[in-house]
Amino acid sequence: MAGNSFGTLFKLSTFGESHGTAIGGTIDGCPAGVEIDFDLVQQDMDRRKPGQSAIVTQRKEPDTVKFLSGIFEGKTTGTPIGFIIENSNQKSKDYSHIKDTYRPSHADFTYDKKYGNRDYRGGGRSSARETACRVVAGAIAKQVLGAMKITAYTSSVGDIQLNKTYQELDFSHTEQNAVRCPDPATAEKMEAYIKEIRSQGDTVGGVVECVIQNVPVGLGEPVFDKLHAQLGKAMLSINAVKGFEYGSGFSGTALKGSEHNDLFNENGSTKTNLSGGIQGGISNGMDIYFKVAFKPVATVMQKQETINSKGEKVEMQGKGRHDPCVVPRAVPIVEAMAALVMADFFLLNKISKL
Amino acid sequence: MAGNSFGTLFKLSTFGESHGTAIGGTIDGCPAGVEIDFDLVQQDMDRRKPGQSAIVTQRKEPDTVKFLSGIFEGKTTGTPIGFIIENSNQKSKDYSHIKDTYRPSHADFTYDKKYGNRDYRGGGRSSARETACRVVAGAIAKQVLGAMKITAYTSSVGDIQLNKTYQELDFSHTEQNAVRCPDPATAEKMEAYIKEIRSQGDTVGGVVECVIQNVPVGLGEPVFDKLHAQLGKAMLSINAVKGFEYGSGFSGTALKGSEHNDLFNENGSTKTNLSGGIQGGISNGMDIYFKVAFKPVATVMQKQETINSKGEKVEMQGKGRHDPCVVPRAVPIVEAMAALVMADFFLLNKISKL
Amino acid sequence: MAGNSFGTLFKLSTFGESHGTAIGGTIDGCPAGVEIDFDLVQQDMDRRKPGQSAIVTQRKEPDTVKFLSGIFEGKTTGTPIGFIIENSNQKSKDYSHIKDTYRPSHADFTYDKKYGNRDYRGGGRSSARETACRVVAGAIAKQVLGAMKITAYTSSVGDIQLNKTYQELDFSHTEQNAVRCPDPATAEKMEAYIKEIRSQGDTVGGVVECVIQNVPVGLGEPVFDKLHAQLGKAMLSINAVKGFEYGSGFSGTALKGSEHNDLFNENGSTKTNLSGGIQGGISNGMDIYFKVAFKPVATVMQKQETINSKGEKVEMQGKGRHDPCVVPRAVPIVEAMAALVMADFFLLNKISKL
Amino acid sequence: MAGNSFGTLFKLSTFGESHGTAIGGTIDGCPAGVEIDFDLVQQDMDRRKPGQSAIVTQRKEPDTVKFLSGIFEGKTTGTPIGFIIENSNQKSKDYSHIKDTYRPSHADFTYDKKYGNRDYRGGGRSSARETACRVVAGAIAKQVLGAMKITAYTSSVGDIQLNKTYQELDFSHTEQNAVRCPDPATAEKMEAYIKEIRSQGDTVGGVVECVIQNVPVGLGEPVFDKLHAQLGKAMLSINAVKGFEYGSGFSGTALKGSEHNDLFNENGSTKTNLSGGIQGGISNGMDIYFKVAFKPVATVMQKQETINSKGEKVEMQGKGRHDPCVVPRAVPIVEAMAALVMADFFLLNKISKL
Repeated sequence: MAGNSFGTLFKLSTFGESHGTAIGGTIDGCPAGVEIDFDLVQQDMDRRKPGQSAIVTQRKEPDTVKFLSGIFEGKTTGTPIGFIIENSNQKSKDYSHIKDTYRPSHADFTYDKKYGNRDYRGGGRSSARETACRVVAGAIAKQVLGAMKITAYTSSVGDIQLNKTYQELDFSHTEQNAVRCPDPATAEKMEAYIKEIRSQGDTVGGVVECVIQNVPVGLGEPVFDKLHAQLGKAMLSINAVKGFEYGSGFSGTALKGSEHNDLFNENGSTKTNLSGGIQGGISNGMDIYFKVAFKPVATVMQKQETINSKGEKVEMQGKGRHDPCVVPRAVPIVEAMAALVMADFFLLNKISKL
Repeated sequence: MAGNSFGTLFKLSTFGESHGTAIGGTIDGCPAGVEIDFDLVQQDMDRRKPGQSAIVTQRKEPDTVKFLSGIFEGKTTGTPIGFIIENSNQKSKDYSHIKDTYRPSHADFTYDKKYGNRDYRGGGRSSARETACRVVAGAIAKQVLGAMKITAYTSSVGDIQLNKTYQELDFSHTEQNAVRCPDPATAEKMEAYIKEIRSQGDTVGGVVECVIQNVPVGLGEPVFDKLHAQLGKAMLSINAVKGFEYGSGFSGTALKGSEHNDLFNENGSTKTNLSGGIQGGISNGMDIYFKVAFKPVATVMQKQETINSKGEKVEMQGKGRHDPCVVPRAVPIVEAMAALVMADFFLLNKISKL
Repeated sequence: MAGNSFGTLFKLSTFGESHGTAIGGTIDGCPAGVEIDFDLVQQDMDRRKPGQSAIVTQRKEPDTVKFLSGIFEGKTTGTPIGFIIENSNQKSKDYSHIKDTYRPSHADFTYDKKYGNRDYRGGGRSSARETACRVVAGAIAKQVLGAMKITAYTSSVGDIQLNKTYQELDFSHTEQNAVRCPDPATAEKMEAYIKEIRSQGDTVGGVVECVIQNVPVGLGEPVFDKLHAQLGKAMLSINAVKGFEYGSGFSGTALKGSEHNDLFNENGSTKTNLSGGIQGGISNGMDIYFKVAFKPVATVMQKQETINSKGEKVEMQGKGRHDPCVVPRAVPIVEAMAALVMADFFLLNKISKL
Repeated sequence: MAGNSFGTLFKLSTFGESHGTAIGGTIDGCPAGVEIDFDLVQQDMDRRKPGQSAIVTQRKEPDTVKFLSGIFEGKTTGTPIGFIIENSNQKSKDYSHIKDTYRPSHADFTYDKKYGNRDYRGGGRSSARETACRVVAGAIAKQVLGAMKITAYTSSVGDIQLNKTYQELDFSHTEQNAVRCPDPATAEKMEAYIKEIRSQGDTVGGVVECVIQNVPVGLGEPVFDKLHAQLGKAMLSINAVKGFEYGSGFSGTALKGSEHNDLFNENGSTKTNLSGGIQGGISNGMDIYFKVAFKPVATVMQKQETINSKGEKVEMQGKGRHDPCVVPRAVPIVEAMAALVMADFFLLNKISKL
């Protein structure tokens, strides 16, 4: 209830600060008998980890998961899956420059006011390091989902947009470039832009798009836990996210009903899919697709005026190795959160009918 | 867990179908000692109710709330507040034409597949009639929030947009026009457009914007129950919603960090507010503002081809009195859901520190 | 979270005060497609209702349930089942004599201190009238349980004990006497004793025993939601309950392991059943049996010294029509709570394995 | 929901198997600003750990807690407190003799049937080793409770009973003997009996009694989460527990109301305390006291006939170092679970009134 758990039946709880001993989590409710492919877990971890390419932070963290329980002889046992990821560089740095300083558009101020104290090293709990735990759990969740397939990719960086629908794309290109855009030409422009921004000591935002395919009909628990409501919450809970839309989204608001309605084929599929695969909060078997907006990273390598905890003006400048754009590393996090949502609803749906 | 409850400490559960005996709900966790102003409850109900103006559905429903428990001698007692709203027109209609028909972009198909049967009268549980219960609970929640002020209004209908920030608006105009747009000139255009659309037997979408003012610092429970994540879920759980963004939203993704960062004043407020009043998932004391996208109503008064439950092609046409645009009636629903979220986090925050 | 909900998937929430307009509840999570036998519901209501025999309170309340949602054409739809029971005698009485008085061993004092105010009419929320809602929900739960059979009965009243194991009893006798003891000779003694106690203006406690048969292996969710832990909580949440034990219970603590262990038959059943049908918090397929201790009713028809809300000594005497012993009417409540627990675990167990 | 979490606001989740890499847990919802005394944590761990005296299992496990997060510069930060306890002897043993064998009155059979597979090493998840995590969390919870004082002790072993009320005891003796009975003479008899039982290769059960003092009025959340209902669930969730009673308990059922009622003093305290400090599920400020029944340990060092997973008869004999009686080591576990319950209700009560 203090907000560090996600899900009802397939439930992830995470703990850990950026520079504590370790971060970690527990997955409670993973059904027994799932054969775990550990390579798939590490693969997703590697897609998220720092230092993976020239356009992300150059910090070095091995990000190796250590599973502590819940898996025996390669299979889940139905008991909680505990895991930790050690913080390899926990002791290395001097944080005195931010100890009493509230960095602009960071959570330093709000954590301090809410809790009265905070672990100021590297952002503490508010650091995006916590999302590594989500990627671990998401990689397990994917293995529960069977044929369902979750694919995310970068669809804009700054004002460079990928102006193609997901059907026009070849997802096999996504992981072939550092920015994770499945259109090679656009990817090149995005990469060049990120490099330029970084050379200015600045940062930039972007959008991740995600598609979920082979979804069974029936997932989602109206009226409050609608499939898209839970997907939205999942995405908005990721660091730096400012918006979520699915199907026709904001642009659909300008359409007429006669244009927006998805007419049925005789087999129950629909001719169009402005609904984004969800009707009344329940999957209808069509592809689910949505967009997630990420703001520009708040840590810029430029001088900024700010205040300290006494309310005095101070000047500060970002130090260290930070991402100029979070979007490339956010792609596996978006997939992970989507997988958690889908696994939870997949299990809940098993008891909709007697 | 079957999705009909919302909130952790200030918790609403709802029940009821569009044409059953009654809809209703329970608020569990409202603190004791709150003096309830019943007029404020009815006022919000009247803002949501059908038949209130020329541009909404002409159905007549008195929508009177009957409180059954939890309030004694005008004050809450700390015990659950049960309430019902009777369905006055429950027996009046013939639904045989939609009994076996799946209306396009409605939840008929998904409910039927998920549950194996459904109450087909007027959409049953998937009808937006359920949101009346949210308005009741939201009106109670507002009375828990003290100085916090929640104000929603229509910011677009179709492609008619209110191109002003909330700071440029005079909210006292909002309730003076049927469309609930605080800019009289734009309101007039919106109303005219809705009437035109209706005369075509068609419908249109729109956007509701909401501002929350006088928010204490500290509301929100990271890492999963971030204030904006829960607001997003709340909004996405409302019928017909397709998207949510707060602060700079999707447009903020095109900015650079140096442009997007909100620099502090010495008192902890910020010079700009692209963050939308939330940092790291916790309110920072600045105004919270967000946008909610509503799709066009699926029921159009035009012939549409569709299928029945046997997978046969059938033709259908919307009957009865439906909204050509949900946005004017959605304004109090958006406020209500925002109030529920804020009340819950307001209570949770009381135990952040020992 | 304010304590008025019970269960995870099959979840009951209740509301209502003894003398408000109505009491009621919502069952969220009942699977779709359950054919509801309303007579069975009323039958259990009649077993609990006041005025049913000469040894219970002579208040007259019809206790008719009005289902408001979630059941359509005789079957559950998977949406929440809302129901109310009107309080027929809500306006009839004068409560000024207890308005400011704290009755000994009642909840008047604790409610007042916790909440700062209370509905003093007839005990308000703390009245056992609330358990009528549990009986409704339990009667629905029983219809989800298929072959599982839940049978409760009175096993002691004061110091009159039924010294037989449940295997020695013929349950068809239980409902043939007012005290609900399946042994006619003991039942007679218990009835006589209750009448004698009542003639003294006094009350007496007792024990209810409950047996659950035809239980599938696998129900229960360790480590915290063990089957017996949840059964214990369920029973202890009933008004006036002071203790719970299952299987060998307190008397089993005096045994040696070599005497207490239940050895297996080849088919997985056990030769003895001191375990009470549960191993490690999970049902093992043997009968589950447990005992529930009820204290004597606190309202006695004798003068008692007590205090008022100002801390002044006052004298009071119970008025009205009260039960001299709650046990006969508690039998269906024990069954109902057991049914809620079993239905919840029955659903949860469907997702233990992939 | 898969049962590995306990509590609403002060919430413990545990993971880990007896012979996996580590066991551990997360406390989510501990308020910020609590100064943690780590010695008190280790002290409680030492009271639970194996090998502490001649009458408990002689296994050697250091049972050192490693806190991973949520505590910074000696104080809680309001973020989740993650911790692990490494399993030092995880690889040392050969479990082939129980791999396919269902030990009588153990959870081998039920886990195997429920989940389809299980970690058979040392009982896996069903081992009482998991309770070490509860002791860690309980020791933290105690530090949230301020003046409240939780004291448990052994009140019976087999049929040797401590026939004194808690008021007649000097708790300073409890930790002075291996059996944790505050009456030295009785303690001696209990110890001798445990040694005798062990020499027979047998085991024995017992009862732990617990007293909670200096409790504020108002803790408990009726109607389902009554203080004693949650205490009961907490206790029944401990391995080997068969029963729970509080206040007058089962023996109170034989009393008359006129004998059982606790009359008030003018200051709101009561002259007697058969209620056990709880009225209507809410603490009334008097001492809370309850009893917990523990069955004899199932692992006996005698030959027993049992079955294997194919349903074939096999003979087995307990090996290794097991407790002849769990009660002495259960004392700190009972305290820990009580502390978790009280901390949760203590926080919940802060929002009962506006």
